[in-house]
Amino acid sequence: MNQRGAADGCGEPQGFRRHGGAPFTVSVVLPAGGTGERTGLPTPKQFCTVLNRPLISYTIQAFERLSWIQHIVVVVAGESNALMTDIIQRFQHTKVRVVSGGATRHRSIFNGVRALDAGKSGATPDVVIIHDAVRPFVEEDFLFEIAMAAKENGASGAIRPLVSTVIATSSEDYLDHSLERSKYRASEMPQGFLYHVIYQAYQKCSEVDFDFGTECLQLALQHTGTQAKLIEGPPTLWKVTYKRDLAAAESIIKESLCGSACIISDGSERSRELGQCLQRVMGSFDMELDVLPDVIGDASCLSKEWNFIQLSVNGSGLPEVEETVRALEAANRALLHPIVVVWVRFDTSDGLSIMETGARPLLLVELASAAKLQNILLYGIHLHFSEKDAGWSDGSVKRLAELTYTLIHDRNAILAGQMLHA
Amino acid sequence: MNQRGAADGCGEPQGFRRHGGAPFTVSVVLPAGGTGERTGLPTPKQFCTVLNRPLISYTIQAFERLSWIQHIVVVVAGESNALMTDIIQRFQHTKVRVVSGGATRHRSIFNGVRALDAGKSGATPDVVIIHDAVRPFVEEDFLFEIAMAAKENGASGAIRPLVSTVIATSSEDYLDHSLERSKYRASEMPQGFLYHVIYQAYQKCSEVDFDFGTECLQLALQHTGTQAKLIEGPPTLWKVTYKRDLAAAESIIKESLCGSACIISDGSERSRELGQCLQRVMGSFDMELDVLPDVIGDASCLSKEWNFIQLSVNGSGLPEVEETVRALEAANRALLHPIVVVWVRFDTSDGLSIMETGARPLLLVELASAAKLQNILLYGIHLHFSEKDAGWSDGSVKRLAELTYTLIHDRNAILAGQMLHA
Repeated sequence: MNQRGAADGCGEPQGFRRHGGAPFTVSVVLPAGGTGERTGLPTPKQFCTVLNRPLISYTIQAFERLSWIQHIVVVVAGESNALMTDIIQRFQHTKVRVVSGGATRHRSIFNGVRALDAGKSGATPDVVIIHDAVRPFVEEDFLFEIAMAAKENGASGAIRPLVSTVIATSSEDYLDHSLERSKYRASEMPQGFLYHVIYQAYQKCSEVDFDFGTECLQLALQHTGTQAKLIEGPPTLWKVTYKRDLAAAESIIKESLCGSACIISDGSERSRELGQCLQRVMGSFDMELDVLPDVIGDASCLSKEWNFIQLSVNGSGLPEVEETVRALEAANRALLHPIVVVWVRFDTSDGLSIMETGARPLLLVELASAAKLQNILLYGIHLHFSEKDAGWSDGSVKRLAELTYTLIHDRNAILAGQMLHA
Repeated sequence: MNQRGAADGCGEPQGFRRHGGAPFTVSVVLPAGGTGERTGLPTPKQFCTVLNRPLISYTIQAFERLSWIQHIVVVVAGESNALMTDIIQRFQHTKVRVVSGGATRHRSIFNGVRALDAGKSGATPDVVIIHDAVRPFVEEDFLFEIAMAAKENGASGAIRPLVSTVIATSSEDYLDHSLERSKYRASEMPQGFLYHVIYQAYQKCSEVDFDFGTECLQLALQHTGTQAKLIEGPPTLWKVTYKRDLAAAESIIKESLCGSACIISDGSERSRELGQCLQRVMGSFDMELDVLPDVIGDASCLSKEWNFIQLSVNGSGLPEVEETVRALEAANRALLHPIVVVWVRFDTSDGLSIMETGARPLLLVELASAAKLQNILLYGIHLHFSEKDAGWSDGSVKRLAELTYTLIHDRNAILAGQMLHA
């Protein structure tokens, strides 16, 4: 189970190379017209933001980053049209077209499917994947399996084992019988169809199917005789349904962003030493650290990493931090996820240090406020190094590592600009 | 949907008064032998900690606080016996007995049921509620409904609408048919039984039932002819199953703890002014604030509140903070949840302030380290008040409110002892 997929927004996707690409064309329909009344929130859940970005943008990105996906049709309720268009612009999605939904889920999906036909998009895809806007963690390998199975069998769908026993109730809400769990599965998303299968299924649909049907696979079986291939999917396919699920989604996304960081040393001996110390201690939090002399010299670190730890001995160090922030801004790196920059300022002077650090925060606050507007979260940590003692104590490096980890993990925008003490 | 129930650990439960108490005896069996392999974590999920406390202790507390619940039998795998006993001691649970489980879920539940019979506990209860250790958010009103329905009908159980369509698969993993969603329900926990009904059902169980049965309600139907009453429960009944659910549980618990706070003013005019300002601004975060002259004088605030904001003008203010921390320790208030104390130190001197605050953190760090051992999280926020300007700016009170809210909401132990700047 690789929950890191969500953060992997760049580069050629692995699966595409591994699978040798899809030998047919694949497009996607994302119904996103739900009102989300189960979350108990005023905003439909697909538009709720996680780390400053609507959930639906994460789901779009899960498809858009795959080179073998051609078009993504998002079907929204009429009143959400402007909001959706704004989201596409802000997060620079390029493969998406927005279509207005119908009165029910099936009418909406059919609108999406029709929007993909040759007359409108230039070329009808061989396979259509239908997915929920509120299942943002779908992974490439599984999508590829679904697409292949749809190509071979006409239809395919994700299934999961049942979490609860399913029971039949009598009319009076008494237990009638319970189903044998092993014979049944929960039908989930994504599902895949040959274009003509799903198109034909919808064309033959009755009004009752359109109004009350819930299962596309069932419509394909009923109206085209296509028996869908069912594939067990990973638990990451789960659907954001309740308010608590937004917290779960946020934790998965945060987790995916804090697996590694890049340490930028200021070139001094002390700084290299501390970098290595930190590298060792942070390893116990499952965070991998690369130590670099400066960020500007290494573009690959800039284009991959979500977290930067900048070390400076004595002198201010803020100009170098500013340089890092500017480079990240110039590379448009914080478009999809907030980037964290932790400025670790350690002084080796004895006595004065604490008084001195008190005077620094104002500049940091200004720089952090400007960076925050670009989705870059800047924090400071002060560490005192005593020449009288053996150097830094294990205790203070451990505290530094804990603070750095918590800042990187939590990505709390409210704390940006604060100067903490290790 | 009241998700605050989890935090409401004191006082006579509302429902008990409202329902006039249960006119019969009720005890509980909590099977907690699961290995939790679905979380992907080394620790079984019922023993995973949320805010420093194992999940199962939250579930126990959900029952223990109800005066109409007599005994709680927790059934654990043999190897977890010592761990469970330690949890009961640490969190001072008083109604719990630990029993060793059997090889399957049903054998474990039967062990729990037997432990409640008269010979062992003094008096066999009229009704037994069976619940999962990993559903910590069950509420009193719903438990009462389940107990009443069990008393009247012999058996009762919680149901929820199906989240996904349920499908039957062919032997080759192709779609056979999908079930009509409206006729089926997910069977959840809690379930309630007259003692003799569940006892008799288990006594008549075959080895196959014991090994492969999943549904107590089905056993009661099959072996005693008791048709269970089904009651739709709230979404809070959900079961912590995956790692992401721990994040969801944590967010619900944190949410339940940050609905209100107590402001302790230092009695000065400035402090009262700021208190009122803060009260107004924090209202927009849905946090209710009471302003008190000092914490020692108001015991009701000490015994109810999870969050304290202590204001001090100029002078150190730390001795007063220390007094608050000592009073909370003496009252054993942080046993079940971490308590947050935010020390807001504002100075009205011009010019010197920033240099000066730099020198304070050391004392704060020491006090915070000691408090943390007692599960009390102490943070500092510095706010500068300029006599030259119109007083504090709206901007700085807003920042103060945001910082205070984030500290109270997040309860991040790593940040304890830090001095932030508003």
